[in-house]
Amino acid sequence: MSDMGLVIVGAAGRMGQTLIRTVHTMDGLRVAAAVERPGSSFLGRDAGELAGIGTINVSITDDPLAAFAKADGVLDFTSPDSSVEFAGYAAQAQIVHVIGTTGLAPEHEAKIRAAAHHATIVKSGNMSLGVNLLAVLVEKAARALEASDFDIEVLEMHHRHKVDAPSGTALLLGEAAAKGREIALAERSVRVRDGHTGPREEGTIGFATLRGGSVVGEHSVILAGSGERITLSHQAEDRGIFAHGAAKAALWAHGRKPGLYSMLDVLGLN
Amino acid sequence: MSDMGLVIVGAAGRMGQTLIRTVHTMDGLRVAAAVERPGSSFLGRDAGELAGIGTINVSITDDPLAAFAKADGVLDFTSPDSSVEFAGYAAQAQIVHVIGTTGLAPEHEAKIRAAAHHATIVKSGNMSLGVNLLAVLVEKAARALEASDFDIEVLEMHHRHKVDAPSGTALLLGEAAAKGREIALAERSVRVRDGHTGPREEGTIGFATLRGGSVVGEHSVILAGSGERITLSHQAEDRGIFAHGAAKAALWAHGRKPGLYSMLDVLGLN
Amino acid sequence: MSDMGLVIVGAAGRMGQTLIRTVHTMDGLRVAAAVERPGSSFLGRDAGELAGIGTINVSITDDPLAAFAKADGVLDFTSPDSSVEFAGYAAQAQIVHVIGTTGLAPEHEAKIRAAAHHATIVKSGNMSLGVNLLAVLVEKAARALEASDFDIEVLEMHHRHKVDAPSGTALLLGEAAAKGREIALAERSVRVRDGHTGPREEGTIGFATLRGGSVVGEHSVILAGSGERITLSHQAEDRGIFAHGAAKAALWAHGRKPGLYSMLDVLGLN
Amino acid sequence: MSDMGLVIVGAAGRMGQTLIRTVHTMDGLRVAAAVERPGSSFLGRDAGELAGIGTINVSITDDPLAAFAKADGVLDFTSPDSSVEFAGYAAQAQIVHVIGTTGLAPEHEAKIRAAAHHATIVKSGNMSLGVNLLAVLVEKAARALEASDFDIEVLEMHHRHKVDAPSGTALLLGEAAAKGREIALAERSVRVRDGHTGPREEGTIGFATLRGGSVVGEHSVILAGSGERITLSHQAEDRGIFAHGAAKAALWAHGRKPGLYSMLDVLGLN
Repeated sequence: MSDMGLVIVGAAGRMGQTLIRTVHTMDGLRVAAAVERPGSSFLGRDAGELAGIGTINVSITDDPLAAFAKADGVLDFTSPDSSVEFAGYAAQAQIVHVIGTTGLAPEHEAKIRAAAHHATIVKSGNMSLGVNLLAVLVEKAARALEASDFDIEVLEMHHRHKVDAPSGTALLLGEAAAKGREIALAERSVRVRDGHTGPREEGTIGFATLRGGSVVGEHSVILAGSGERITLSHQAEDRGIFAHGAAKAALWAHGRKPGLYSMLDVLGLN
Repeated sequence: MSDMGLVIVGAAGRMGQTLIRTVHTMDGLRVAAAVERPGSSFLGRDAGELAGIGTINVSITDDPLAAFAKADGVLDFTSPDSSVEFAGYAAQAQIVHVIGTTGLAPEHEAKIRAAAHHATIVKSGNMSLGVNLLAVLVEKAARALEASDFDIEVLEMHHRHKVDAPSGTALLLGEAAAKGREIALAERSVRVRDGHTGPREEGTIGFATLRGGSVVGEHSVILAGSGERITLSHQAEDRGIFAHGAAKAALWAHGRKPGLYSMLDVLGLN
Repeated sequence: MSDMGLVIVGAAGRMGQTLIRTVHTMDGLRVAAAVERPGSSFLGRDAGELAGIGTINVSITDDPLAAFAKADGVLDFTSPDSSVEFAGYAAQAQIVHVIGTTGLAPEHEAKIRAAAHHATIVKSGNMSLGVNLLAVLVEKAARALEASDFDIEVLEMHHRHKVDAPSGTALLLGEAAAKGREIALAERSVRVRDGHTGPREEGTIGFATLRGGSVVGEHSVILAGSGERITLSHQAEDRGIFAHGAAKAALWAHGRKPGLYSMLDVLGLN
Repeated sequence: MSDMGLVIVGAAGRMGQTLIRTVHTMDGLRVAAAVERPGSSFLGRDAGELAGIGTINVSITDDPLAAFAKADGVLDFTSPDSSVEFAGYAAQAQIVHVIGTTGLAPEHEAKIRAAAHHATIVKSGNMSLGVNLLAVLVEKAARALEASDFDIEVLEMHHRHKVDAPSGTALLLGEAAAKGREIALAERSVRVRDGHTGPREEGTIGFATLRGGSVVGEHSVILAGSGERITLSHQAEDRGIFAHGAAKAALWAHGRKPGLYSMLDVLGLN
């Protein structure tokens, strides 16, 4: 079988460049096209040169439709609106679409679900093997330890440039805990504490956020009971794990029938 | 149903006193007898007064056989040789025997297994809910993450008075990891590192030990891969969780048929 | 020299009982009186019995003035208004007043400062040796690492019953960092993060709060730069360290001239 | 003043390449020469191309003497024997020599001290700002907290390829603690614990080592007392901090008189 050809969208960004380097070096994959928005100063430049791996004879283009037509899949860590647009094109081309974009609102989710009738979509708030395994463990622990005995807290730290809080991954882990407890996260989460808060309310899930330096991403879920505590943590040391996970997801999805999948499917953790 | 009557062995020790206080306050349980070794200066004293909860009209005795005959079960955090002896008496009396003793050698294990034909024995290197749940999560993680990608390390810290290393709980967690990896812990564990060690050997499980202050017990299992790390930890804040777990195990075992059970059975984690 | 006689105020509370036990066992100290508020159901009871150490022949009273008149000092972990009242009585009696009360507003601070013309007052947001040393280290680190390179975050975790956030100790550590940076904490602190926060603002000090289980108190100050991070942490395992610190402060203050002192003075860290 | 010209020794190694990239981008510095051992397959290649930053017109050479003669300083993270040899050449050339090499034996140290009569040498087991600050804090804490109350432990974790234990930085931190306690580290350190160890001996400094994954380097010094614990930690996220520290040391040393300096001098922490 020939290599799977992938389109990198947002190709000139930090994550786009990491994706190009990753796809270029992985067996069974090749960079088929690289897309940036119209007007980008990088249009026409070689994607490999931009990513620091030398010429790969793929010029950055602003025409996603043409790019998707000649590819087997798309790797996408862009923005909610762009990802919805790309999902439509992926559905037209009936190819794989791996979405690592965060901050999706319910209306974005609905459109992506619709596109998944014709595209093979893998979507996750975090593409790393470790975080997805952690979510499975968190759900199991939250189910085993009763809310009357164990309080659940989610702590995360990211670099100083991150603009939202809590992180998408913190919310993903909170959802896993809520699923284990069979509660709705939105109704039971405590997202800030300041001043006179009163005692902790039983059954809630608390969030706390740290920001500083160049931290790639660290998450802990704490289950605190009387006299003992369990802490389940993940540390990302290198942004490459997300690119690697996305590339693995594309390989897994290749040839699979259309639908909306998660990294738990890819990793065999479901 | 009347309360389950329990014998506390090693009643004058630190853990024995904690057991007396715990049993005294738990619904469905009562202290039936308190045993110390012959010659102990505490013989004849009231077990409740010694434990700081006032008179409970149970004098400390050096006759375990008589004590076991009138009881429904035994709580035992003593020493390997003593626990083997008590298992024999529990088998004669056909009662429950909860064993939290650590440092058992294969010959002790064999004798306890034999006693379990007539006694209902619950035995664990750690009686806390949290540690037993953690062991389940560790096994699952070790199975999901391949040895070629993720290295497993077990770290523990205990107070300055602890006399052995690594702790029984660290070994219990190492066993859980080994089970997940389908390897034999004894053949693949690295228990010391000092001087020129060479690079880490793939598939091994490393141990590291910290000692200091009054730390009740902290354990972490680290699964370290390329660019990411998962850490699964337990902190015991209070020795009472072990007494509480042992008491819960006795209640669970009451009326159950003879056999050798673990805390995973008690906690429904098996 | 005879033992220093101390009044325990708030004697029937959890901290009051811990103080009674601590003072009773320390060389050079004795419980001179135990005070509760008028109407308390504990008035007239023996303070030692209440604290679980047997009769000490000190009945709990609601008359602080009479109690202070026959004592050398007062240990006080009550409430801001009560502590101000007790400081007035301590000034009249010209004795030592150790204040571990948190949540003091500027008007409380002013009145305590006034009382310190006649009383020898030791006041601190945290009476433990470890936290006070940590504050000194935090100030030193904050001074050495420039705000343009290193972001400062303060994280704390306490048990589920705590009713305010961040803890007094977290604020004490934040003040130490602000002093090292020569900034005003009130103007530069970020106490909540939720939703779209934008990137972290240079030179600010962030706070994050965790609540759960029975955690006595844990604090970390993180200094996060590009490619490296320093974390300075304190874990309290046992409430007894605060009682012990207060008792040591009383011994230190005994015979010293009136004034307002801190635990840094007591511990020789100033 | 023209840029300071630096020789990178061990130029084709992982750290050598990081040094080339760092020096190339820092103001006031330039790569004057790049040295590898005779027979290296990289001789003659352009050092910039090898380091992934494009041609810088510096060919890799095996003649350190000629290279040093035309330079102002040397950056050296090689091996003990090589560093001793390079120190001799730096003394002949009377230039700056920054040594980040670890594992030096007393005989290496003695020869480097001798070379420092003519070369301006900065030598440290760790070139990062954070670790050197941490060492200062550790010494201060070890001095303030008495050995009868607080036990000191040093924990480190590094990637799976590291061949020695404990790390040079762990030993550096242990030395800082020993200095604070006014003891000799070699006589009081406990480097392994396995099996029946007996209780912890008062006043010792314990070491524990973790190995796994791609961890750049993490160190914690724990001071554990009765009921409380202080932990002082450093996490290196990126090898670049060591290259950056070495380059800063070269700039600091430029024009300074011969002698043996440490990073504490460079960072103004002495």
